[in-house]
Amino acid sequence: MDKINVLQKLSLFNEHWTPKIIGELNGQYVKLAKVKGEMVWHKHDNEDELFLIIKGELKIHLRDELITLNEGEIYIVPKGVEHKPVAEEEVHLMLFEPKETAHTGDVKSEMTVEVQEWI
Amino acid sequence: MDKINVLQKLSLFNEHWTPKIIGELNGQYVKLAKVKGEMVWHKHDNEDELFLIIKGELKIHLRDELITLNEGEIYIVPKGVEHKPVAEEEVHLMLFEPKETAHTGDVKSEMTVEVQEWI
Repeated sequence: MDKINVLQKLSLFNEHWTPKIIGELNGQYVKLAKVKGEMVWHKHDNEDELFLIIKGELKIHLRDELITLNEGEIYIVPKGVEHKPVAEEEVHLMLFEPKETAHTGDVKSEMTVEVQEWI
Repeated sequence: MDKINVLQKLSLFNEHWTPKIIGELNGQYVKLAKVKGEMVWHKHDNEDELFLIIKGELKIHLRDELITLNEGEIYIVPKGVEHKPVAEEEVHLMLFEPKETAHTGDVKSEMTVEVQEWI
């Protein structure tokens, strides 16, 4: 396989809330996303989901807490925990989650990306 | 759980070739390491291993190829593939790998860390 340059991969797309797959290991995908605005509340019943911020500030609303993440910060949303990511300005982030993780978990919305593509 | 600040976590240790665990999800660990010098040749028979470079330049020797990684670059060493990481100057990196991954895989060496600690 080839090495993966995160910034080069980020230069290949501009859509928001549309994660792109950049790597696969041990049944997990590594993804990149650009986000701005509000995601819907959702949860993943069987998958923990890692967010790593590359640029910007992401707020992850939980039902009882607000997590504010900046560049170089990680948050792992445990399986079953409802969350709603919000980005006032554009945020670039990396995700690490099982291959079977649905984009908006238990919720279908107009934001849901059914098939995520490799870049 | 709390958020994880990668640079703050890196400030907590200085040992080389001694990965520290900073997160866990879906049976995988997220680890940080500082490395300088040469690791031993080894492989992980059942685990793919992701390297993400935070600072510096890491060379990953494979038996038939040399992968040179700089900041913001990722390489996934597939299971069963012999590799030898080498850092001429100090490198800071993140690892993603299954919890059961042994430090030096199929090889025991004086560099082997049997029990990796959380920070």
